[in-house]
Amino acid sequence: MFDDLKRKCCEANLEIPLLELAIYTFGNVSCADRENGVFAIKPSGVDYKLLTWRDMVILDFDGNVVEGALRPSSDSRTHAVLYRCFADIGAVVHTHSPYATAWAQAMRDIPIYGTTHADNSIGAIPCTEWMSDECLKLDYEEQMGFLIVDCMRRRHLRPEENPMVLVGGHGPFAWGKDGEEAVRYAKVFEEVAKMAQLTEAINANAASLKSTIINKHYLRKHGKNSYYGQPAGGIASR
Amino acid sequence: MFDDLKRKCCEANLEIPLLELAIYTFGNVSCADRENGVFAIKPSGVDYKLLTWRDMVILDFDGNVVEGALRPSSDSRTHAVLYRCFADIGAVVHTHSPYATAWAQAMRDIPIYGTTHADNSIGAIPCTEWMSDECLKLDYEEQMGFLIVDCMRRRHLRPEENPMVLVGGHGPFAWGKDGEEAVRYAKVFEEVAKMAQLTEAINANAASLKSTIINKHYLRKHGKNSYYGQPAGGIASR
Amino acid sequence: MFDDLKRKCCEANLEIPLLELAIYTFGNVSCADRENGVFAIKPSGVDYKLLTWRDMVILDFDGNVVEGALRPSSDSRTHAVLYRCFADIGAVVHTHSPYATAWAQAMRDIPIYGTTHADNSIGAIPCTEWMSDECLKLDYEEQMGFLIVDCMRRRHLRPEENPMVLVGGHGPFAWGKDGEEAVRYAKVFEEVAKMAQLTEAINANAASLKSTIINKHYLRKHGKNSYYGQPAGGIASR
Amino acid sequence: MFDDLKRKCCEANLEIPLLELAIYTFGNVSCADRENGVFAIKPSGVDYKLLTWRDMVILDFDGNVVEGALRPSSDSRTHAVLYRCFADIGAVVHTHSPYATAWAQAMRDIPIYGTTHADNSIGAIPCTEWMSDECLKLDYEEQMGFLIVDCMRRRHLRPEENPMVLVGGHGPFAWGKDGEEAVRYAKVFEEVAKMAQLTEAINANAASLKSTIINKHYLRKHGKNSYYGQPAGGIASR
Repeated sequence: MFDDLKRKCCEANLEIPLLELAIYTFGNVSCADRENGVFAIKPSGVDYKLLTWRDMVILDFDGNVVEGALRPSSDSRTHAVLYRCFADIGAVVHTHSPYATAWAQAMRDIPIYGTTHADNSIGAIPCTEWMSDECLKLDYEEQMGFLIVDCMRRRHLRPEENPMVLVGGHGPFAWGKDGEEAVRYAKVFEEVAKMAQLTEAINANAASLKSTIINKHYLRKHGKNSYYGQPAGGIASR
Repeated sequence: MFDDLKRKCCEANLEIPLLELAIYTFGNVSCADRENGVFAIKPSGVDYKLLTWRDMVILDFDGNVVEGALRPSSDSRTHAVLYRCFADIGAVVHTHSPYATAWAQAMRDIPIYGTTHADNSIGAIPCTEWMSDECLKLDYEEQMGFLIVDCMRRRHLRPEENPMVLVGGHGPFAWGKDGEEAVRYAKVFEEVAKMAQLTEAINANAASLKSTIINKHYLRKHGKNSYYGQPAGGIASR
Repeated sequence: MFDDLKRKCCEANLEIPLLELAIYTFGNVSCADRENGVFAIKPSGVDYKLLTWRDMVILDFDGNVVEGALRPSSDSRTHAVLYRCFADIGAVVHTHSPYATAWAQAMRDIPIYGTTHADNSIGAIPCTEWMSDECLKLDYEEQMGFLIVDCMRRRHLRPEENPMVLVGGHGPFAWGKDGEEAVRYAKVFEEVAKMAQLTEAINANAASLKSTIINKHYLRKHGKNSYYGQPAGGIASR
Repeated sequence: MFDDLKRKCCEANLEIPLLELAIYTFGNVSCADRENGVFAIKPSGVDYKLLTWRDMVILDFDGNVVEGALRPSSDSRTHAVLYRCFADIGAVVHTHSPYATAWAQAMRDIPIYGTTHADNSIGAIPCTEWMSDECLKLDYEEQMGFLIVDCMRRRHLRPEENPMVLVGGHGPFAWGKDGEEAVRYAKVFEEVAKMAQLTEAINANAASLKSTIINKHYLRKHGKNSYYGQPAGGIASR
């Protein structure tokens, strides 16, 4: 029944090592089927080289396993919270890519220094606080989802315009309308994190890009007046 | 009619991911046909893996599409301005390569610290200011071309001797007599940007190379007394 | 008699260049057979491209050659000391991977800045002092083993919970229950060392992760209540 | 007559792009035949992908072309000086590898921070001054050779024990008894340069390794009491 979802999810997961976003099993992608209220996710601790689409595990948005022989990613309940709270996202990616993780470990938001960033997110990439000791005693992975959602809400950020977040002391999460877009944001995340680190190394007083340029670039690629890429049908129409 | 131009342009574009100068579709190369007053450019937002020479779009130097089924790169009018203002260039490359982009985000010229740089450009690589809010209200991509041209002119730089420029807050542009040379400058740009960042990390007070060595190296490779490489005919004559 | 041990040891050694943990012959892996009181190790100075399992050398835990036509790795007696002193380890890896080596050269412990680190080791990665001139006059490689063991003991670190150590001015050593695990720790070591360097570049005052999160992550992956990965049988049971 | 020399020289040159020590044609290797008083070197500006052993150019130690249809590397006379002044070297390598070049641009010696360095060179890697304006008016490439030789002599360094040098503002030169060894030193050079930069990033007050450890490591690999690697005959004798 969920074969198609599993196939897409497996394909997105296999992009992670290809794009050098994680070593070993340090990453996971899930893809949601909103109609059926479920998502597919990578099984926990399985080597990417051994992974097949049949290994994907199906869960509902409360984090209960619906289908699958293997144990799902230990981060599954974090993904479930994001699907519950961000109604329009269709896929979630978590990696330990080194530059993004270093910003998370440094407990800093990634400032928006250039148009590579502004083409993909409308402002600084937020970094959450550490989880409180009270929350650490509860369901850890679920609480990590709440940590992300609370951070976004307190800063009045919309998931559609800010598809990347850092969990402080841990690493990056990204999302998108589908697995392909979410993985692309995870890759852009790492690239933007690297460029921002280098920017500060080159100029310790570097300033964030001014809002008029941010808006110009973001709107060039997103929204109804965007003019980047091909019109609907795109390259297939040639 | 423009098949040859399209083939050369496609080939030059395909070097971009091979040389690791851009991820996804974050880069574009155009190649001019001065006799016919047109240039070929990559279509907007098309994956390098799907790109064929037939997809290249032909535009005139005012930025109007002359031939092609797909929408041209969103940066096309920037390229058009450069062809109009720099009469001797035959190709333009724009990438988001990380080190060069970091210098652009840091809003700094790249000092000329060594002979790798001096072999390819006769001085510091200039970085433009941000575009003014007044210009941002006009045709953005055309204005970006003017930003580059004005920056070069105010500093009395000749495009032939300074084939690389940073658009502040955005990233690198390079040009050359043809696609192959322009792409080579785009690659050298990234290498020089990386070496300059490392140079400052190693010595915060590093000095620019003295002009006598700059001139020696630049003239070893360029101009009528150059003696680098093989004479006309070159390796083909063996 | 030790063919199986040699095969496993050779396979683990061949991971070193694949994982980019050493150039040329700058690394070695040994694998122990506790029942027979021996370990297999790479021969000294042999190119990874020429290495076959038959070239592995078998030594006892006093560092005497038991079997093998070639001279064993010059670091063999360091490995022997580790097997003698750390009763539960089954494999040892030494590399000169660049980020971990840089921390060793900087004579600094690697602080535990994030969960990538805490998933694999329960605290900072210790760095030994330089070997004293008195010890340098004795058996150098054996003394290096004692340097590692003494450093661990003085800090009350258990080899099972802290499978990575830096020899000051030299480079990283890691161990594990078998060759596969030890090599994985050697790779994680380099990744953690890189992330820690970047973390400090991004925030010169970065704080170590709080102990409640360290413990949560370490215990998620290790010990009887761990829930990462697949249960015994694992993916093979699908 | 020099076919064998040309073959070895070509093979050594082809290692340069494989080991990522230079982009485009920014590097060259020469190999000497001391009996005949000549050396083979890469032709100038020829793409590594097009290079065959027949393209190698033969020169005498005064820098005169003895055999070859193509123009030799523009750095040939620098190589010639090194062969004249350092009687025991059999091959010379020049690259623009980024970390080593950055130290040259920073005009700094590379301190000896660890055993990776001490295994290959007995002290800091020296960096020359810029060439004086007087010398710049003479034969530039020959003067560069003298710059290297003078720097070594003023510091009382022996080419056998210090096979790597930086030309200030330019980049690294390395040498060895044959092409294979010289190229290995060029690769180690870049690795040591990278590790030294990272060491200072991690600890701005990092100290050079003490001489007793330097000597131990250097003599472990070099000289009559060395015990690294396999005895004469080596792995071929198995």
